[in-house]
Amino acid sequence: MMNGPRLIEVRQRVLKQNDLLARALRERFRRAGVCVISLVSSPGSGKTAFLERTLGEFVRRYSVAALVGDLATENDAQRLRRSGARVQQIATGTVCHLDAAMIERALEDWSLEELDFLFIENVGNLVCPASYDLGEELRLVLMSVTEGEDKPLKYPTIFNTADVAVITKLDLAAAVEFDLEAAKAQIHAVRPGMRIFEVSAKSGVGLAECWRYLEARRLSSA
Amino acid sequence: MMNGPRLIEVRQRVLKQNDLLARALRERFRRAGVCVISLVSSPGSGKTAFLERTLGEFVRRYSVAALVGDLATENDAQRLRRSGARVQQIATGTVCHLDAAMIERALEDWSLEELDFLFIENVGNLVCPASYDLGEELRLVLMSVTEGEDKPLKYPTIFNTADVAVITKLDLAAAVEFDLEAAKAQIHAVRPGMRIFEVSAKSGVGLAECWRYLEARRLSSA
Repeated sequence: MMNGPRLIEVRQRVLKQNDLLARALRERFRRAGVCVISLVSSPGSGKTAFLERTLGEFVRRYSVAALVGDLATENDAQRLRRSGARVQQIATGTVCHLDAAMIERALEDWSLEELDFLFIENVGNLVCPASYDLGEELRLVLMSVTEGEDKPLKYPTIFNTADVAVITKLDLAAAVEFDLEAAKAQIHAVRPGMRIFEVSAKSGVGLAECWRYLEARRLSSA
Repeated sequence: MMNGPRLIEVRQRVLKQNDLLARALRERFRRAGVCVISLVSSPGSGKTAFLERTLGEFVRRYSVAALVGDLATENDAQRLRRSGARVQQIATGTVCHLDAAMIERALEDWSLEELDFLFIENVGNLVCPASYDLGEELRLVLMSVTEGEDKPLKYPTIFNTADVAVITKLDLAAAVEFDLEAAKAQIHAVRPGMRIFEVSAKSGVGLAECWRYLEARRLSSA
């Protein structure tokens, strides 16, 4: 994201193009009956660990797949494939977010009708992904207890464009003296009433409740 | 940062403009005899905590000031002002990085000649700040042990544009089973020979060594 009047003008056109493509994707996902859930967060907030546990659980009962975005490396895809789910890496090069065109390209030869859930892990970035609709049904914003309680007020846009907040690495909360109530208050200051889950991918705490919510969401949108 | 041919073209012009302005700033900093050090990292990697300790120490022996970038809030400036140093917040709105023009505007009525050190804390973002030269003498990239060892390979550009890496939150290394040697190997895979400091702003470990390096850097560039 940049500044200057010329750039803003071009950027608005790019975003409009992305919105149109995302709308077409959303319609395609709906027709195929696949529930598409995206994950955004800072680098290192635990998106991949959360997804690893979630795929491992969901693969037993659903047909589930994932797209994972990073500037470089296939690390996350390799790690997530161990779950048995179909996983494809999207390497963005120098681009700091996924966009709808990247999602469309990655899904070119996929039969979406066979899927119940598709997860999309965005590039680790708490700013730019906010502007790009990917056609997802649900957007989760993750923040780890190690990042501090103040991130929602400092990065309000991404919390505003997400549907659900997931506080991660709860097992470290005591070690970093994390104030859970303060964090929730900050999330709700930016986005009143936002649904918040508190989880640890390491200990497993909170995951089952979050998974039930995702499963219910799929049924309600079908 | 975005894609599409029109956008890339406009972006290159913006970056070129920024480079020219950054060059002028660097010359201005050099003439004034102020050592300018910028900090980049993910949100929540501990830039502000590191800066808080550093300002608190440096203010006793130097004339020191800081600019802090965030999308929104004055929180960091308020927190850092307790050190006694002059601190100014730059609120970027929706812009995901600082640029040279923002630095120039923020310093408009400052007498740089009175300063020994000026710290610039960038917006928390491990991607976009890489492209924007701010005229700094030294760029520190921080990564916390809680983010995992793999960030350098996943975000190579920011490690390539930084001069020094600082591994933060060392007090949590055991709790997150952080592999320090693996992290260093990854940093050096991206940037061979890069100077690495390992610190904890909480326990204080490693800070003195890092500070000695910054002080020596100022003298060698004077």
